[in-house]
Amino acid sequence: MTSEASFIAALRHIATASAARGLRDDAAVLNVGGTQLVLTMDAIVEGVHFLADDPPDTVAWKLVATNVSDLTAKGARPSGCLLTYPLTADEGWNASFLCGLDAACTAFGIPLLGGDTIRQPPGSSRSFALVAMGEATCDVVPARSGAKPGDLIWVSGWIGDAGLGLALLQGKMQASPADGEALIACYRRPAPQPAAGIALAPHVTAMMDISDGLLIDASRLACASEVAAVIALERVPLSSAFVVSCGDGVEQRLKAASAGDDYCLLFTADPASSEMILDQAAQAGSRVYPVGRIEEGQGLHLENGGDPVPLPDRLGFEH
Amino acid sequence: MTSEASFIAALRHIATASAARGLRDDAAVLNVGGTQLVLTMDAIVEGVHFLADDPPDTVAWKLVATNVSDLTAKGARPSGCLLTYPLTADEGWNASFLCGLDAACTAFGIPLLGGDTIRQPPGSSRSFALVAMGEATCDVVPARSGAKPGDLIWVSGWIGDAGLGLALLQGKMQASPADGEALIACYRRPAPQPAAGIALAPHVTAMMDISDGLLIDASRLACASEVAAVIALERVPLSSAFVVSCGDGVEQRLKAASAGDDYCLLFTADPASSEMILDQAAQAGSRVYPVGRIEEGQGLHLENGGDPVPLPDRLGFEH
Repeated sequence: MTSEASFIAALRHIATASAARGLRDDAAVLNVGGTQLVLTMDAIVEGVHFLADDPPDTVAWKLVATNVSDLTAKGARPSGCLLTYPLTADEGWNASFLCGLDAACTAFGIPLLGGDTIRQPPGSSRSFALVAMGEATCDVVPARSGAKPGDLIWVSGWIGDAGLGLALLQGKMQASPADGEALIACYRRPAPQPAAGIALAPHVTAMMDISDGLLIDASRLACASEVAAVIALERVPLSSAFVVSCGDGVEQRLKAASAGDDYCLLFTADPASSEMILDQAAQAGSRVYPVGRIEEGQGLHLENGGDPVPLPDRLGFEH
Repeated sequence: MTSEASFIAALRHIATASAARGLRDDAAVLNVGGTQLVLTMDAIVEGVHFLADDPPDTVAWKLVATNVSDLTAKGARPSGCLLTYPLTADEGWNASFLCGLDAACTAFGIPLLGGDTIRQPPGSSRSFALVAMGEATCDVVPARSGAKPGDLIWVSGWIGDAGLGLALLQGKMQASPADGEALIACYRRPAPQPAAGIALAPHVTAMMDISDGLLIDASRLACASEVAAVIALERVPLSSAFVVSCGDGVEQRLKAASAGDDYCLLFTADPASSEMILDQAAQAGSRVYPVGRIEEGQGLHLENGGDPVPLPDRLGFEH
């Protein structure tokens, strides 16, 4: 067990309220006077979740977007957020961060309600925490744990673009200027779609967001649902920027599916709901793609064109 | 304007929702399906809000208690909290922190609902963020801004003990072992009383908690209410441990009133409510002390036995 896993296992003995969902979901769901309030808290750290030279406005955007992504995965309508901000003497940095914060709160319709400014001692990496909340829009708030054998597995966007954007920034690969810009924007400005989450929530059996990589997050969904997840690699949707820059063989598809930072939806649904799923997503301005199926059993399994593919050593980003 | 003040002024242009209370209160108040949900987020940083060698269980206690103190000041009944925890390889530290977290959540009746674990790069000071929420218990949630000329100013506990505890830990003074232990406990284990906040909320005109020092927080209350606050230093309640260790002259009283970390309530009420205030506090197991009065005008004013006392250079802890 990793130290994070053993720490969270210990936390579960404290977080015993049903609202905590056993700390096995993207968010908590608290009953507030009969309304189900979805609550999530995600922090980002310089050098871990973003690069020291990322523009400050994109750091703010990413902080808001990653939290909104969790609300989206629970079909919640954003209602507010609070921020912990490490204040430094760099006023240009502060001002740029505020610009991005304003833009993200406006774009996602999530009002800033408060928070705390802190002073970090010299030498500390910048660390930002945000809590976001939203009202659930359907009676049964989707969990990671509802997938059933026979369900299809879907994703709500291209996979791997953000990971490629990070690789470009790290100088690990190259792309044309136009493709490079698009891929880096995917890394720096994730674009969760709360309207899609709200539209899909009544029709899914399980839903979560992809933050650490399709493969690792699908394995988490399978584990929470006590089923097996089979991903058909040839169906993983890739953008043209990805394919042009990197190719679309099995190796590249594995890379895309284990890169992380996608912040789109991963969900399962009865095949009988497929038409409804496609229709609801389209009405919400989103495209969804079936990428696999749920079976009896456990764990994650991969195939490509019907042939089994061994799991890579690394399924995604582990904290 | 300090950099924090100018940053918060800029934040106000973003946080325009009424729930944010203009970022001028201890907490946000969000309407969730007709219920008023009080939300606060306070972070603590090693070397700023706690000492590197403070026992980890007391760090967790302080993190929860400082947030519960904000809920208490709004008369809210705690309903849940979420934590951002910087995970390190020091498993003993983690385990002790969890012990203190469990103890505090249990003591204050606030369930842990979720959060995030993060990795901080080497050399970073530990930084913890907590968000706490609670349901308001009276229709008008007390603000900092309701004090009226003629009101009395009250506090709900001894002032200055925590500051003396910090001075002891820093080797800046000495005390008997028994007094020292009591004073250090005040610094490390603040004890807000949600029941007192709930009992007092319907009877106050303004209420906040004292986190940075009685004087600076009273000046903030006066500013938010657009009135003058007059503190009678001889009335500031001091513990016997404080008086024995430090004395109770004007200088010591100024020190107590500008030390911070008290985490008791500061509130104002019509003098006609005094009997009710005393009675409600007693029923909630708390003692309250009148320490001054609100007048027309602005700013903070001090007196001792009726004689004016000049304001000290430093009114309390500024972030």
